[in-house]
Amino acid sequence: MNLRTLTSFLAVTALTTGLAWGGQETLLEQSRSYFEPIPTSAPELKGNPATPEKLLLGHMLYFEPRLSASSLISCQTCHNVGLAGADMQETSVGHGWQKGPRNAPTTYNAVFNTAQFWDGRAKDLMEQAKGPVQASVEMNNTPEQVLVTLNSMPEYVELFKKSFPKEKEPVTFDNMARAIEIFEATLLTPNAPFDLFLKGDEKALSAEETQGLDFFINKGCVGCHSGVNMGGTGYFPFGVVEKPAGEILPEGDTGRFQVTNTAGDEYAFRSPPLRNVALTPPYFHSGKVWSLNESVRIMGSAQLGIALNKEEASAITAFLKTLTGEQPVVTHPVLPPQTDQTPRPVLTTPGV
Amino acid sequence: MNLRTLTSFLAVTALTTGLAWGGQETLLEQSRSYFEPIPTSAPELKGNPATPEKLLLGHMLYFEPRLSASSLISCQTCHNVGLAGADMQETSVGHGWQKGPRNAPTTYNAVFNTAQFWDGRAKDLMEQAKGPVQASVEMNNTPEQVLVTLNSMPEYVELFKKSFPKEKEPVTFDNMARAIEIFEATLLTPNAPFDLFLKGDEKALSAEETQGLDFFINKGCVGCHSGVNMGGTGYFPFGVVEKPAGEILPEGDTGRFQVTNTAGDEYAFRSPPLRNVALTPPYFHSGKVWSLNESVRIMGSAQLGIALNKEEASAITAFLKTLTGEQPVVTHPVLPPQTDQTPRPVLTTPGV
Repeated sequence: MNLRTLTSFLAVTALTTGLAWGGQETLLEQSRSYFEPIPTSAPELKGNPATPEKLLLGHMLYFEPRLSASSLISCQTCHNVGLAGADMQETSVGHGWQKGPRNAPTTYNAVFNTAQFWDGRAKDLMEQAKGPVQASVEMNNTPEQVLVTLNSMPEYVELFKKSFPKEKEPVTFDNMARAIEIFEATLLTPNAPFDLFLKGDEKALSAEETQGLDFFINKGCVGCHSGVNMGGTGYFPFGVVEKPAGEILPEGDTGRFQVTNTAGDEYAFRSPPLRNVALTPPYFHSGKVWSLNESVRIMGSAQLGIALNKEEASAITAFLKTLTGEQPVVTHPVLPPQTDQTPRPVLTTPGV
Repeated sequence: MNLRTLTSFLAVTALTTGLAWGGQETLLEQSRSYFEPIPTSAPELKGNPATPEKLLLGHMLYFEPRLSASSLISCQTCHNVGLAGADMQETSVGHGWQKGPRNAPTTYNAVFNTAQFWDGRAKDLMEQAKGPVQASVEMNNTPEQVLVTLNSMPEYVELFKKSFPKEKEPVTFDNMARAIEIFEATLLTPNAPFDLFLKGDEKALSAEETQGLDFFINKGCVGCHSGVNMGGTGYFPFGVVEKPAGEILPEGDTGRFQVTNTAGDEYAFRSPPLRNVALTPPYFHSGKVWSLNESVRIMGSAQLGIALNKEEASAITAFLKTLTGEQPVVTHPVLPPQTDQTPRPVLTTPGV
């Protein structure tokens, strides 16, 4: 918050020049102080070392619909590797065609988020992976039933053994999540035009995109959207200056308040990462806005208290499109054969 | 039918020896007269020549959920390339979580079927591909809306142009189906143990599997399950000798009769191809039987009027497992970015 306020203040003195800030820093230098390029290989994960076996296991589990009660829904359903790790839905559709409460964040580059989910209730991807499997509106399964499923297929049992070779009983719900985390950490989108810019190629951005970057930094967007992922680093009230329309910010969803129960967290949500944002409409936790340009304008008024004019909003939108990186090419894994012990699909919804 | 009756009759004289039939043909020679190995490359399709562009387009469309009204369901949903081209459901689940009327046949090797669907109402894969897109219980879309979707994404428009270079307006519903057909024709599973046997490696089958093959031919299964796909070549009444339980053969589904309106076609269904059958439970058009062994016994009594004993059913089941071929390794395509013109998901169900 302080950073944003400071930036907004300083922006007044350095709005229009585009390539100099306080007469000292170039836009590239300034950008490098806020942002980092997406790495080209997966980061190491504390307490969860990667091995080829664990990566293969996680890859299979990400695509495994039999982790859901219905045998119809996998991580891939809402985090589609053909659709930039998201699902093009307002809010995701899960078990029984139920609509979930919030828009599905992309799994791409998610390893660089400070925490996961719109309210940050999972500290990392391993914690995150356990949520949707159990959520009644998503995969509607239980850890116990997942273990029955995994233990029913010898190929999985073998792969868990190889992935966690020191453990006596390697087939666990936590290890399922650890393997998925290892796979998800490889879903990176490096070499976006903006990454090339950050690495020193100032011609990677057009004049309009460069202008948009300048606006993005000096009008204050960077206050919430910085770091490798340009977001995903903290929680901010949606409507800090001006509350958006009730449809965009549904009253029933108080965001991080539901996690912390702290008054200041009402309607606070994780600032979403903006990597590949042009590929992942619709926007906001409610998924109610499909236009990126409109989303930029809403953010201007709601978060910064400024009415972006047409040119400014277009330039920022053009800049945001330079955050589209190389999409990972993912093989669809061949999943293990069912056995007579594998639980059969349950399509009914409890209580319905 | 005549073939089956003849075979059943002759079987009496050649039941137990396994490797000689009427004292003349070996089991290998006999097998070669009924079956062919799965080829290692896609066959040419009459009137639909394959090109790399068309294959890529079809590959993308197979995985494209935006062909459905909800943007949630693609060919891949019910014909999962991780699950041997099927979905492990009794009957497939589509738009609005509606359960469809019949079990999803695999797309693998489907190009070798005489016709498509359980009732053969589509003469080829191109015709087939147009069905589920429009079925209200599946993708619930219309050809007109599909064209709006495809035309909204420049990457698709470009790829249709390259795939159908001589056509003035290449983005058509039929061309969508042609491209999907080209992709599906590549979904082959060669080199199953039984293919190796057919190619001359008699040691590719164990003693029990060889015995099962002998039973399969000489007890009459081959009457309906022959050719490359060991089935998929004709229509046969389910329960030709003994009507199975109502749950397995639901009264409401009269099968091919619904297509031909001919009395003899009541409860007639296409004999399903048996390639990879061990990977694609549950069985029959109703999907009501999960055990392959049980399915073999039901077929024995319902179609051949014989009570297979435990040893016979086990041997035939063991043989059927030798029909599991090398599964194709398919890349998940990166799909084109949405635009403001792309229709948004419609989750509601008409009339509900």
